[in-house]
Amino acid sequence: MKRTLSYWIPTGVILMLAGCATSPEADVDAFEAAVLDTWETYSAAMNAGDTDLWISVWDDEGIQMFPGAPARKGKSVIEEAAREAHAALDFEEFTINNEEVEVFGDLGFARGNYSYVVTPMAGGETISFEGKYLTIFKRQPDGSWNVYRDCFNSNAPPGT
Amino acid sequence: MKRTLSYWIPTGVILMLAGCATSPEADVDAFEAAVLDTWETYSAAMNAGDTDLWISVWDDEGIQMFPGAPARKGKSVIEEAAREAHAALDFEEFTINNEEVEVFGDLGFARGNYSYVVTPMAGGETISFEGKYLTIFKRQPDGSWNVYRDCFNSNAPPGT
Repeated sequence: MKRTLSYWIPTGVILMLAGCATSPEADVDAFEAAVLDTWETYSAAMNAGDTDLWISVWDDEGIQMFPGAPARKGKSVIEEAAREAHAALDFEEFTINNEEVEVFGDLGFARGNYSYVVTPMAGGETISFEGKYLTIFKRQPDGSWNVYRDCFNSNAPPGT
Repeated sequence: MKRTLSYWIPTGVILMLAGCATSPEADVDAFEAAVLDTWETYSAAMNAGDTDLWISVWDDEGIQMFPGAPARKGKSVIEEAAREAHAALDFEEFTINNEEVEVFGDLGFARGNYSYVVTPMAGGETISFEGKYLTIFKRQPDGSWNVYRDCFNSNAPPGT
């Protein structure tokens, strides 16, 4: 079958658009919704001490940058540390206040503040924490977003 | 002039490539070079106590997430805090060991470790620090990359 110029030009444009990212505005809205959904799951899992649910938001190649220790590299290492924490500590009132997101293609970041109170399972004083986070998300082949890199720290001055 | 199918297909492919970002590999190499160059300037400025040089790597809308305080928002706020630190503290052996970069379009991140020793200008004990960072870079209209978001924390367990 013979195709004319007027057929091939629109086809080229469609191919061109399909090969690029979707419009920036649409991307940001979808990304922000995915981030807020992730933080809801993250907070609920922390408050429930549910390690299985908590680890489900992470990328297989995730790296958690927890204060007071070298980076934890890989989902299984991150999961093991979380399981130990959830066995020893009762987290409550875990809240994430996301302040911003930016996204470009398969890479996005979220930044904001978190707070929680924690009580040792064995008994002891309940301590409040407030801090801030910078988190990289990576888009998966199915279009979903996983936590890929996560760095955070406390807002409390040292020794307080 | 009549064009054949074999003419329009390559034209469509060229249009498609031109409409998208440059090849991922080329982007990563250029981005990594910019990141390493930035860290060289950052370290040299810290070791020299040169606030003007140090602040030059930052984006005007930069946010520094320093442990022990809420996020510092905007270049002038970040600069003021750095100027106070450089007036009071002598930083030496500031070293950044970049472990990875990833980039997508105008957004990229770098992750790695840092170390330094610091001595109060007024005299006192020299203390060593080791930590890790997660930093977002943003591409400027002229193609250069600035530090846009920077979160870091110490590897030392609390109270040590």
